[in-house]
Amino acid sequence: MTSLASLESALDYQFRDGALLEQAVTHRSHSAHHNERLEFLGDSVLNFVVAALLFKRFSKIDEGDLSRSRANLVKQSSLADIAQRLSLSQYLRLGEGELKSGGFRRPSILADAVEAIFGAVFLDSGFESAQKVIARQYAPILVNIDPKTLGKDPKTLLQELLQGRKIALPVYTVIATHGAAHNQLFEVECSIAKLEITVTAGGASRRAAEQAAATLAIAAVEALAPPKGSRGGARARKSTQLSLPVAVPQETQ
Amino acid sequence: MTSLASLESALDYQFRDGALLEQAVTHRSHSAHHNERLEFLGDSVLNFVVAALLFKRFSKIDEGDLSRSRANLVKQSSLADIAQRLSLSQYLRLGEGELKSGGFRRPSILADAVEAIFGAVFLDSGFESAQKVIARQYAPILVNIDPKTLGKDPKTLLQELLQGRKIALPVYTVIATHGAAHNQLFEVECSIAKLEITVTAGGASRRAAEQAAATLAIAAVEALAPPKGSRGGARARKSTQLSLPVAVPQETQ
Repeated sequence: MTSLASLESALDYQFRDGALLEQAVTHRSHSAHHNERLEFLGDSVLNFVVAALLFKRFSKIDEGDLSRSRANLVKQSSLADIAQRLSLSQYLRLGEGELKSGGFRRPSILADAVEAIFGAVFLDSGFESAQKVIARQYAPILVNIDPKTLGKDPKTLLQELLQGRKIALPVYTVIATHGAAHNQLFEVECSIAKLEITVTAGGASRRAAEQAAATLAIAAVEALAPPKGSRGGARARKSTQLSLPVAVPQETQ
Repeated sequence: MTSLASLESALDYQFRDGALLEQAVTHRSHSAHHNERLEFLGDSVLNFVVAALLFKRFSKIDEGDLSRSRANLVKQSSLADIAQRLSLSQYLRLGEGELKSGGFRRPSILADAVEAIFGAVFLDSGFESAQKVIARQYAPILVNIDPKTLGKDPKTLLQELLQGRKIALPVYTVIATHGAAHNQLFEVECSIAKLEITVTAGGASRRAAEQAAATLAIAAVEALAPPKGSRGGARARKSTQLSLPVAVPQETQ
């Protein structure tokens, strides 16, 4: 385990009581003095601070968009990203079994430790400090978010995009399934009659395939008529589209 | 609508910006300047403050008990109780329709307004003030809670009670159903062979009837052998038992 001093630098916060930080990076597999109570506290201070940041930054959006955006910002994968920026895996204290099975890479363990650290800062020196530490980690993320779309799934985004242009809803059709029962690949076609768009994508479930197809369809719609204020948006979208893991784009007919 | 000054007295908090309190008691049916964004903010500051109160008060309990206790303390009916103590219904600003249909008595509207008030206090003068106002409302509630049992359903409590005494689990049996498909009454028997306890209770679903029967069974178990430290507990329990709405107690055989 690397010295916790460098983790304090990354957090830009120096603990008065170093034992709190030590506890925050201790998984229950390591010892009885583990981080789960701190995680409980940290989860709630995090939820509140992110709520307050969103509330203040976006004064016009409604509580539905605030809630969805918050949920997206505090979900496990977002916290695991923060853990990665902090190089948290090298500070984790794990039991033998977790060490061997690669627990230091597991998103749930990393996310829980991030929350526990926020809880530890709150205990160490109060709300203002915790707020500062959390806001610092979220600053680069908050710069670029659009609370109207953040955390919405592609099918919802496609539906809203079409409704905004008064175009009839897309039709999703399963055109093939491959493989055995518990290892199936679904191929789904999404078509938007009025725009003569038909795209096809694959996924491990019908839902996953539909979402992948919706992502391709959004790209196709925006390629036909880029959203206001974007230049060359169609080209940029195209490359995103091609990077989809299981998607099989099909040319517009 | 009564003057908001008396609501400020009940909260023991004086707003710098009275418009914030006005907005907090304004339902969306009344005007566009309603309380839903404040409710989003208030919900999260409330969750955090209650988490911190529980964390500090109960230093030995694990995060599972903390989470369940918190969920119970911030649920709609708990907030509606706080609203009642604040006489909040007389301050609510509702639209015509909600007024006519008794919206000022609706638990969801009352609970949302309580959260919005907490959010308004936070905006008005920061975290410390919000914490103080929330802690004051929760002080009488926190005195009496047992985080090991708070928010657990009767079947779980009965199971834990029996496990603690090394007694085999209770058996639930549906002994009758009455009424038509969408308006059924289930009668369920709960028996604990070793203690020769058999109780019967009714409910609108099998689950509800089982929970009611478990409540009666807990009373019966504790009447046989009161928990340590309680005097006359059995008698007190008996009256609780008899107040159950759909329960039909049956004598121990």
